[in-house]
Amino acid sequence: MAETFLVESPDVTYSKDFIEAKYTYSTVHVCTENGVTKVRPCSTRFTFRTGRQVPRLGVMLVGWGGNNGTTVTAAVLANKLGLSWMTKTGRKKANYYGSLLQASTVCLGTGPTGDVYVPFRDLLPMVHPNDIVFDGWDISSLNLAEAMRRAEVLDWPLQEQLWPYLEKMKPRPSIYIPEFIAANQEERADNVLRGSMAEQVQQIRRDIQDFKETSGVDKVIVLWTANTERFCDVTPGLNDTADNLLRAIEQGLEVSPSTLFAVASILEGCAYINGSPQNTFVPGAVELAAQRRVFICGDDFKSGQTKLKSVLVDFLVGAGLKVVIKYVPYVGDSKRALDEYTSEIMMGGTNTIVIHNTCEDSLLASPIILDLAILTELCQRISFCTEEDPEFQGFHSVLSIVAFLCKAPLVPEGTPVVNALFRQRSCIENILRACLGLPPQNHMLLEHKMQ
Amino acid sequence: MAETFLVESPDVTYSKDFIEAKYTYSTVHVCTENGVTKVRPCSTRFTFRTGRQVPRLGVMLVGWGGNNGTTVTAAVLANKLGLSWMTKTGRKKANYYGSLLQASTVCLGTGPTGDVYVPFRDLLPMVHPNDIVFDGWDISSLNLAEAMRRAEVLDWPLQEQLWPYLEKMKPRPSIYIPEFIAANQEERADNVLRGSMAEQVQQIRRDIQDFKETSGVDKVIVLWTANTERFCDVTPGLNDTADNLLRAIEQGLEVSPSTLFAVASILEGCAYINGSPQNTFVPGAVELAAQRRVFICGDDFKSGQTKLKSVLVDFLVGAGLKVVIKYVPYVGDSKRALDEYTSEIMMGGTNTIVIHNTCEDSLLASPIILDLAILTELCQRISFCTEEDPEFQGFHSVLSIVAFLCKAPLVPEGTPVVNALFRQRSCIENILRACLGLPPQNHMLLEHKMQ
Amino acid sequence: MAETFLVESPDVTYSKDFIEAKYTYSTVHVCTENGVTKVRPCSTRFTFRTGRQVPRLGVMLVGWGGNNGTTVTAAVLANKLGLSWMTKTGRKKANYYGSLLQASTVCLGTGPTGDVYVPFRDLLPMVHPNDIVFDGWDISSLNLAEAMRRAEVLDWPLQEQLWPYLEKMKPRPSIYIPEFIAANQEERADNVLRGSMAEQVQQIRRDIQDFKETSGVDKVIVLWTANTERFCDVTPGLNDTADNLLRAIEQGLEVSPSTLFAVASILEGCAYINGSPQNTFVPGAVELAAQRRVFICGDDFKSGQTKLKSVLVDFLVGAGLKVVIKYVPYVGDSKRALDEYTSEIMMGGTNTIVIHNTCEDSLLASPIILDLAILTELCQRISFCTEEDPEFQGFHSVLSIVAFLCKAPLVPEGTPVVNALFRQRSCIENILRACLGLPPQNHMLLEHKMQ
Amino acid sequence: MAETFLVESPDVTYSKDFIEAKYTYSTVHVCTENGVTKVRPCSTRFTFRTGRQVPRLGVMLVGWGGNNGTTVTAAVLANKLGLSWMTKTGRKKANYYGSLLQASTVCLGTGPTGDVYVPFRDLLPMVHPNDIVFDGWDISSLNLAEAMRRAEVLDWPLQEQLWPYLEKMKPRPSIYIPEFIAANQEERADNVLRGSMAEQVQQIRRDIQDFKETSGVDKVIVLWTANTERFCDVTPGLNDTADNLLRAIEQGLEVSPSTLFAVASILEGCAYINGSPQNTFVPGAVELAAQRRVFICGDDFKSGQTKLKSVLVDFLVGAGLKVVIKYVPYVGDSKRALDEYTSEIMMGGTNTIVIHNTCEDSLLASPIILDLAILTELCQRISFCTEEDPEFQGFHSVLSIVAFLCKAPLVPEGTPVVNALFRQRSCIENILRACLGLPPQNHMLLEHKMQ
Ligand SMILES: NC(=O)C1=CN([C@@H]2O[C@H](COP(=O)(O)OP(=O)(O)OC[C@H]3O[C@@H](n4cnc5c(N)ncnc54)[C@H](O)[C@@H]3O)[C@@H](O)[C@H]2O)C=CC1
Ligand SMILES: NC(=O)C1=CN([C@@H]2O[C@H](COP(=O)(O)OP(=O)(O)OC[C@H]3O[C@@H](n4cnc5c(N)ncnc54)[C@H](O)[C@@H]3O)[C@@H](O)[C@H]2O)C=CC1
Ligand SMILES: NC(=O)C1=CN([C@@H]2O[C@H](COP(=O)(O)OP(=O)(O)OC[C@H]3O[C@@H](n4cnc5c(N)ncnc54)[C@H](O)[C@@H]3O)[C@@H](O)[C@H]2O)C=CC1
Ligand SMILES: NC(=O)C1=CN([C@@H]2O[C@H](COP(=O)(O)OP(=O)(O)OC[C@H]3O[C@@H](n4cnc5c(N)ncnc54)[C@H](O)[C@@H]3O)[C@@H](O)[C@H]2O)C=CC1
Repeated sequence: MAETFLVESPDVTYSKDFIEAKYTYSTVHVCTENGVTKVRPCSTRFTFRTGRQVPRLGVMLVGWGGNNGTTVTAAVLANKLGLSWMTKTGRKKANYYGSLLQASTVCLGTGPTGDVYVPFRDLLPMVHPNDIVFDGWDISSLNLAEAMRRAEVLDWPLQEQLWPYLEKMKPRPSIYIPEFIAANQEERADNVLRGSMAEQVQQIRRDIQDFKETSGVDKVIVLWTANTERFCDVTPGLNDTADNLLRAIEQGLEVSPSTLFAVASILEGCAYINGSPQNTFVPGAVELAAQRRVFICGDDFKSGQTKLKSVLVDFLVGAGLKVVIKYVPYVGDSKRALDEYTSEIMMGGTNTIVIHNTCEDSLLASPIILDLAILTELCQRISFCTEEDPEFQGFHSVLSIVAFLCKAPLVPEGTPVVNALFRQRSCIENILRACLGLPPQNHMLLEHKMQ
Repeated sequence: MAETFLVESPDVTYSKDFIEAKYTYSTVHVCTENGVTKVRPCSTRFTFRTGRQVPRLGVMLVGWGGNNGTTVTAAVLANKLGLSWMTKTGRKKANYYGSLLQASTVCLGTGPTGDVYVPFRDLLPMVHPNDIVFDGWDISSLNLAEAMRRAEVLDWPLQEQLWPYLEKMKPRPSIYIPEFIAANQEERADNVLRGSMAEQVQQIRRDIQDFKETSGVDKVIVLWTANTERFCDVTPGLNDTADNLLRAIEQGLEVSPSTLFAVASILEGCAYINGSPQNTFVPGAVELAAQRRVFICGDDFKSGQTKLKSVLVDFLVGAGLKVVIKYVPYVGDSKRALDEYTSEIMMGGTNTIVIHNTCEDSLLASPIILDLAILTELCQRISFCTEEDPEFQGFHSVLSIVAFLCKAPLVPEGTPVVNALFRQRSCIENILRACLGLPPQNHMLLEHKMQ
Repeated sequence: MAETFLVESPDVTYSKDFIEAKYTYSTVHVCTENGVTKVRPCSTRFTFRTGRQVPRLGVMLVGWGGNNGTTVTAAVLANKLGLSWMTKTGRKKANYYGSLLQASTVCLGTGPTGDVYVPFRDLLPMVHPNDIVFDGWDISSLNLAEAMRRAEVLDWPLQEQLWPYLEKMKPRPSIYIPEFIAANQEERADNVLRGSMAEQVQQIRRDIQDFKETSGVDKVIVLWTANTERFCDVTPGLNDTADNLLRAIEQGLEVSPSTLFAVASILEGCAYINGSPQNTFVPGAVELAAQRRVFICGDDFKSGQTKLKSVLVDFLVGAGLKVVIKYVPYVGDSKRALDEYTSEIMMGGTNTIVIHNTCEDSLLASPIILDLAILTELCQRISFCTEEDPEFQGFHSVLSIVAFLCKAPLVPEGTPVVNALFRQRSCIENILRACLGLPPQNHMLLEHKMQ
Repeated sequence: MAETFLVESPDVTYSKDFIEAKYTYSTVHVCTENGVTKVRPCSTRFTFRTGRQVPRLGVMLVGWGGNNGTTVTAAVLANKLGLSWMTKTGRKKANYYGSLLQASTVCLGTGPTGDVYVPFRDLLPMVHPNDIVFDGWDISSLNLAEAMRRAEVLDWPLQEQLWPYLEKMKPRPSIYIPEFIAANQEERADNVLRGSMAEQVQQIRRDIQDFKETSGVDKVIVLWTANTERFCDVTPGLNDTADNLLRAIEQGLEVSPSTLFAVASILEGCAYINGSPQNTFVPGAVELAAQRRVFICGDDFKSGQTKLKSVLVDFLVGAGLKVVIKYVPYVGDSKRALDEYTSEIMMGGTNTIVIHNTCEDSLLASPIILDLAILTELCQRISFCTEEDPEFQGFHSVLSIVAFLCKAPLVPEGTPVVNALFRQRSCIENILRACLGLPPQNHMLLEHKMQ
């Protein structure tokens, strides 16, 4: 047993393979009847079942040779090897700062000496990032050592130590359709697949199979961290249904590389995560994922400034203020962001907050990549049923629980999009607590409010 | 009936005078037995009873002639009169932006067309700020019109309109003990009480009685918004118990003006709110409040930069980052704040956030003053009991529910101090929901996460 | 005699009409002979003659109803009337802060008690801004009071006082060619000339004559402060020579409104100043000005951030550093600028300066408009000759002495463009000193460096 | 002959040992006679004589093991060895960025293709920093390699290359009087002289002699870059005259270590430069320097933010604006500065500039240390006479020409202090030009302002 704690409750049972928890989910319904607004609290009984066997996880990155791809691969390697290196401010050690799961904590409850916190990763059995095996594709043939150097992200003395390991990793040739990304990528595109569109998708599927066999991982997740593609029109007959999309691929019509990767992954039963803002998930891709019961999630890693922005807006609005943001569009390789928040305060006054953010983006995006892969894998081991519908099912194939980690959270149709960061974090935390039969955090501390 | 909605639930009943709600409060206990950490979910059945009759509220401000005192008085007047005025950017209208209760909303639940939000103030029956009657003390004799002008906070054309009303308001003479506040206040101290310490406290009590009678309000709350006093030593025999404190006052020993005001209020049965950072609530004052079952709360209005700071730290730590803040101590009348947040991100990287905040403090503090008074008044109408202890009781006399509004939240002994802003807001929201039998916000949206 | 001081020197004579000064102008010539760099100091004897009679000056603004146009007109009026008004921070008085001539000083020399400074405007006889009479054109028919209100620049209580005066001022109908400015100007264009291009130019000339006659001013200067026009192609046969340009106007070919105004001014013998960045001064216009010996100057008022930028770059480069600026393009009506200066310092280090500038642009541009008009007028009264060429001449018709006040200084062909602000200021100061026979500022203070 | 160019002029002669230049120095006198201000241009004929033989220069640093001391020593070594090193952004090469003399240029004059610029260091024969030999004292016994590591200034891979060289350099024991510097220095004070005050001064003199002999340098300059000492009272009888100061040292009275170093240097005939803000140069020390005709200069290296501040204030005032600076006192080891400049612009408007500066101080201070030493050495080779007083003399022993490099420029009594950075730079440039018979820069470009 790997868990660091045990829930003792009549509602929770641990078997060899599963943790099973009965859980009361409370909601409120609002309706207007005869001009009167009626508010009705309701509750549903769920049973959550979480698999306890953590598989060996392989993650395949599209854009493996990019800043994010090399940085996350190098960071995991450095952590696994326990590397440290000198800088002018002293010795640094490999770590996972910035990872929700590895570096932040959650409150379990109250113990004899106050609140008891555990690392987020200890809530339920999860893959440890050190155990992830990486592979991937890139249109550039540079090996990962050279690519890491090009990325200019990691301190040089660390790069020197990692070099011999990364040198041996070489991205697989990728699907390259020039019109979908910026023209300046042309020159690095020396590692690209040939053949018809359908053949290329076949090759990607074979790559996934090959990686699984040769590396011995139990499960593969595919994640797009290549360049942002241009927006793709949604066209009836072309990409509006799963069938049409598959047919369009056969015929070599307009389908973006990222959608091709998504389709190949889904057909291989591998969850597909989109770290860029483009609309990879055209309706046909969403339908295909639903049909095959494969998770898809995204879009766009929420690193740095966006995260901060959502927090500030949430704060200002939550404090009863009106906000206007003037912000500088994120230019090219820039790692600076300058934003101004003007809020109208009482009686015509103004409150101006100017924020200048200097960040090393790939160091912020890498832990997010890890959190996304690990949370997705965990969700594949969670199923649930309700009293009304006692058949166990998994989460919706559009996996919205990871919204905290995405700028433009992909959600099932008809679902409200939550952008407030603290609510997104509560969502993950409370769902994982539910899997253990623990009530949601209510922050009321009633026991301390009595005489 | 003033409520804008009705809760329909077997657990909730509305009578002429009360809303009564049965509520299940869920918590988690953690303990270690034989080296194993055991986590036990528990729940307690509460009954909440909230008085529906909203009284006429009078608020007496210590430091009425200061920036905050004049601004909050003028703002309420301008709102009540529905004033508007010209500025170079157009016509402005009186409003309550920045007030949690008046200007922010809460989600009631889900309706036919999505989430349903109501203004925070509509959750339970509350005093409307327009109906508050102000009075107060100041060591400066300027009438409130002149004091408003000195404050340099409100636009001049608005001041002109308010002048005839404010001109008639004159602060009552106050207790002035020079060694407790900055020396530069001496010159404005032309409106001070004479006589022994005990006589002065008697006068303050008579002032409260007088205000109540002449203004016709049902209830009075006293709030300190005068200058910050120096710290006061806690000395056994002097101010460590209620009895000692009362005796010290009789003997004219070292007791700060703010503590004298607190004592006078408590003896009059009036809740006392401390908006400054000083330790007004010496142990003797806290004990006196408990004995008399009167609410005390504070300390230090959480306006502007502090609020932002708590949000950012909460965010950075919640994202798994280590944070160092270099911040500029708040100097004198300065309305600028410059802070730098350096967080150590993955692999030795750094993320630097520099924030420059320009704020008009009294416009931020005024809505907080209103929220504090209104929430405190509401809490006086809430009582509750549990299945184990069926006798109804009120909240602890140290009213910690208002922590969201205070920089250094005063809490009952032994209570953990929560500084995270979003948790503080959740606390208020979930307790008010509990009074209506509504479950806490869990942000899980499970209904949207199923296939 | 209006001068506040007298130069006593054998080289300087004051007559009723003129100040005449003999002046030695020192330069250095560098050449390479037989691989050796030779440096030769040279000097030329000049005689400067400055007219002492200050005329009544009229300034006609193209774009009179814009932010700059209304602000400069209102500011001069408020100064002339000696107005003051209340704001929440107290009473404000009309002033000319930001004007090089009115609000900054120059060092005359050393007196018995140290350096002696005089206001820049006292160096030579100049027009006082209070005495300028304004008139102008605008495509919007709003009177100047309404236009001032639309501009949202001046405090409201000041606007109220100015209203009755400005209400009576109405811009003359202007030349409007939609394709030259942003489409959103269309809706305000309700005050435009009709007829052929040549007829419209005739009307502008008649407007100038009319203004001169009815207002009684001695001299008129025309200044463009209307919207920025699109760039205009320089086409042989069309606008490359004075003759071609005049012919193009006759034929109604592509000539921009600003060039039409420039041509009309030059033909009327009035100096023309361009406050926007567009290339009004096509070669044909420059040639026409030279033929008619009329001053033209510009381009683009150097207010706010640009000024700061040139100072900082000058400073960083002068300190031996390499600089990279990331700056936010000036968006729309935005009054914020956010720039980052990164300089590479010794041994691979970096120095980062982040600047956030909040400015009210028209209050910065207005004093520049006044300085430009007054300096241009002064230059019309200065003539000079050298020993070699004893015939008196005026400055080059492309008046580059005002570079300090312009973002993209227009200079005679073949002249180096100086962007360093302190050198530009020295240029004005030293030329005005030369007119008084005073040597240039050398900052050497040798008398204090001897034992 | 080392010069890169030759001045050809009847006023300039080059001999084997000297460059001699006749020079007309122009000034202006202002006086008031009978209520009339009279302004009289004057001129003096100087002859400047500059020694052409550049000596081998030794620089002894007090505080050699500090951040500045180790950085300047290491930087010179790295430049001399032509070192380069890898960082994540590529290979870096040793350089002298930030040095006025090595990295900025001056305009010689106009050549056939425009202005001709040369590096500042080529104006006159000067020591090259690569040829400076360093030695020094420190109260900490760490060798310079260890001290460099403690300083955390240089990139680690560069430190590794420098280590074997710096390891061999060890600071000489120093004078340590605890009450003069911060208490936290106590722990590093393991390398201090013993004996009476007079004996310690003797030892410092012997150290200087020893360094000169063993290193073979021709000339030594001593520079204080140790910690800032507390202010020292000027007391009649103690330190008000040279004699009293020397007597106080004999008697071991209150004299600060920095003054002791200054006295020892002066007695050895070595120029003494003070890089800290303390008042090392009590009147007695100034008199002693004058008696011995030895240069003293300082105070306080003008690096980073101060420099920027003087430029901005100069700019804002020069533009006719009123300025208020709110700035954050420079705290401890902080390398951040946050300043706000508010200037009142026309008609009550405000312009706000907020600056956040991130700098590596020692990399900015090191080139200033080099410039100070090299300029001081050059000044020792310059002498001059006037027509009235044909005897050659050197500069005043209080060497104010280096004001550009100092925060609080030390000047001879009665001399105006110039803080404007551009005027300070002009001063150095124009004096060096005078030594070559070249006129001061006047920026008038008259030749381009004629028709
Ligand atoms: N770094 C961050 O903080 C964030 C990144 N993102 C997204 O992540 C993406 C990657 O970011 P970086 O690693 O910084 O960019 P990068 O430009 O360093 O790396 C992109 C890599 O993708 C490769 N590539 C391009 N097209 C490809 C294709 N069709 N198949 C395979 N490889 C292909 C390129 O050769 C390159 O190696 C960005 O484009 C952006 O959309 C989103 C949010 C935040
Ligand atoms: N404005 C804000 O954003 C915040 C204010 N505060 C607290 O609120 C206090 C008031 O702030 P402002 O209104 O801006 O200050 P202020 O200085 O404008 O007003 C203080 C008023 O208190 C009066 N006073 C002083 N001693 C008194 C006494 N013994 N009895 C009666 N009146 C007395 C003074 O005459 C003055 O009119 C501050 O001192 C601070 O401790 C705390 C947090 C935020
Ligand atoms: N305000 C500043 O700090 C600076 C302004 N400028 C230049 O000054 C120009 C004016 O600035 P603002 O007064 O702030 O702009 P604005 O937009 O407030 O005013 C422009 C005025 O020009 C009028 N206009 C447009 N086309 C015209 C035409 N053909 N004939 C006559 N009037 C015409 C418009 O109706 C409007 O009233 C800017 O467009 C810019 O090019 C340049 C540098 C700085
Ligand atoms: N770094 C900069 O940008 C600027 C520095 N300064 C001045 O330069 C001084 C040095 O700066 P850092 O090198 O950064 O400081 P630091 O603290 O790194 O170095 C000072 C060194 O002086 C030594 N020391 C102290 N008392 C001594 C004594 N009596 N005799 C000999 N050595 C002694 C210390 O052991 C230490 O090694 C500062 O204290 C400051 O006054 C002034 C302006 C700018």
